[in-house]
Amino acid sequence: MNVIVWDNDRVRFLDQTRLPQEEQYVVTGDYRVIADAIRRLAIRGAPLIGIAAAYGAALAVRNSSGDDQSHFTKQVEQAAAELESTRPTAVNLSWALNRIRRVVAESEGQPIADRSSSLLREAHAIHDEDRAMCESISQFGAGLLGEASTILTHCNTGALATGGRGTALGMIVRAWELGKIKHVYIDETRPLLQGSRLTAWELGKMGIPHTLITDNAAAFLMQQRRVQSIVVGADRIASNGDVANKIGTYGLAVLAAAHSVPFIVAAPRSTIDWDIKSGAQIPIETRADEEITRVVGTRIAPNGTAAYAPAFDVTPHRLITAIVTDRGICRAPYRDAFRRQQRLTVDKHD
Amino acid sequence: MNVIVWDNDRVRFLDQTRLPQEEQYVVTGDYRVIADAIRRLAIRGAPLIGIAAAYGAALAVRNSSGDDQSHFTKQVEQAAAELESTRPTAVNLSWALNRIRRVVAESEGQPIADRSSSLLREAHAIHDEDRAMCESISQFGAGLLGEASTILTHCNTGALATGGRGTALGMIVRAWELGKIKHVYIDETRPLLQGSRLTAWELGKMGIPHTLITDNAAAFLMQQRRVQSIVVGADRIASNGDVANKIGTYGLAVLAAAHSVPFIVAAPRSTIDWDIKSGAQIPIETRADEEITRVVGTRIAPNGTAAYAPAFDVTPHRLITAIVTDRGICRAPYRDAFRRQQRLTVDKHD
Repeated sequence: MNVIVWDNDRVRFLDQTRLPQEEQYVVTGDYRVIADAIRRLAIRGAPLIGIAAAYGAALAVRNSSGDDQSHFTKQVEQAAAELESTRPTAVNLSWALNRIRRVVAESEGQPIADRSSSLLREAHAIHDEDRAMCESISQFGAGLLGEASTILTHCNTGALATGGRGTALGMIVRAWELGKIKHVYIDETRPLLQGSRLTAWELGKMGIPHTLITDNAAAFLMQQRRVQSIVVGADRIASNGDVANKIGTYGLAVLAAAHSVPFIVAAPRSTIDWDIKSGAQIPIETRADEEITRVVGTRIAPNGTAAYAPAFDVTPHRLITAIVTDRGICRAPYRDAFRRQQRLTVDKHD
Repeated sequence: MNVIVWDNDRVRFLDQTRLPQEEQYVVTGDYRVIADAIRRLAIRGAPLIGIAAAYGAALAVRNSSGDDQSHFTKQVEQAAAELESTRPTAVNLSWALNRIRRVVAESEGQPIADRSSSLLREAHAIHDEDRAMCESISQFGAGLLGEASTILTHCNTGALATGGRGTALGMIVRAWELGKIKHVYIDETRPLLQGSRLTAWELGKMGIPHTLITDNAAAFLMQQRRVQSIVVGADRIASNGDVANKIGTYGLAVLAAAHSVPFIVAAPRSTIDWDIKSGAQIPIETRADEEITRVVGTRIAPNGTAAYAPAFDVTPHRLITAIVTDRGICRAPYRDAFRRQQRLTVDKHD
């Protein structure tokens, strides 16, 4: 499944708002179409929006010629700013765009066509690295799960959310390949139903046994001892291990602790925000009331009903059993664990 | 609002599946239409289905004549059995029908027309008593809430769920009348959205400020200290105080405990099942997969996706701060508190 590909100087992406009814792809040469797709969640999932934003920035200057260096820089800056403004919570967006910005700065003075190619190379690198990170996360994470595991997951963290096989869902799929998964329960994940629309669709395609539940049935499942582990992704991880993720994650973590169910977060290192000390500093996006008062276009609440629609919540690190990154398993204290993984990287590459 | 009335030997009821789009009433002389309405949740709410079942049983023999005593008894028995089988969890159904059965037994040998009238009188009594119980619950419950309260409620427990002003919602409305309510948050209550479809509609009509949230946002609200009390109804209360109520209630109770938010249950004494010692003995109804895989008629999950759709869950008494009945406030140990209330009744009436 190629949810996003660079093809002949255009970007082709799957419009996820149409799933599971139709698999419809959009082909565009305009970064603003990418920005709009991220805004309306046609492209979603923290790692995937980072990749899409990088491709978007590359698109913005793909046909640049001449030798106006500052114009080129300004064009990329403008596209990057617009792409970055689409969604505030996931840090992968600014992480990817900062890599693009660095290439822009470093290529200053080189021929415009070369600068443009460098940008595209960086976007491809971000995509390729994410694919590799998904593999690592999946492998490390699968090792955490016991035999005949019954897992509960929230939202969608699979191939549809990343450049590869996924993060939390990637580790579930890898564990399935290793014969370790008995059953997967999927939270439908209101309001936008990424669980029922996307995760059920992915697991169905792979033939992995799964059952859909309403988000509010998760506690009852745990009370019945039908959940052995909860595995979720992340949109931003503070340096102390606090995790911003899809609304409902925090409640699941509290319930997991109350039922002694391990609560595992899986995300690439690009999701860690070293600039913030705790989850209190993570901006939480609020979506339109309509995302709650309507379902698939039909009004479900009386006209004029006000709603509160936070897209994410923050789970304090003390409720998290382990955070799986592409470098391995982190356990509390997370700041130290993250630092050790950073050093591991430096050792390898420097 | 008359959600159910006996009118000229027919029953007129509001079809709640049509709300909030339309206020459509059904008029019927056939108890099977009542049974079907309960089954498909056109008539719902534990107290209301008790009232409806009693009226249904009265309808079944409304046009009986002649003097075949055993035929009369058999007709009521058959209707009562069918009405009782519609939904397994709420005890009010069998409680109301047992009152009807008692009248049938006690009236044995009297003229058929008199027996039929006695049944109808009992049904009216059940309805009237529920109205009075709602008033008492509301009054006692409102006293529990502090000034400028911000309340979270789940499902619908108002005039649409009872023969009067409601149980949990009744006490919120009463507190509003007393100037004690600042804001009400409503869980949308998946899968059937009684919160967004019904509770938002009731509070909107009364001009009580409210905001709709997805069920999975409740924990985040509590984390932000935006909920001062959680108030819910009950479909069956075991003699030890364990409460069966709409799916999602148990999770809310665990979250409330974790955030030190008082968790209050409001229900008439008819909801207490003295025959069972704990919640483990309460049968939990499972609804059709389609109630989760479709929303308002539109499919939201891939074809063939399996779902698990418990309609209720059980909250252990240790998580409940207080149970408000029509006789007052009960606190743990609940069995003793319930017994004291029973004695209070006996003292008054005997």
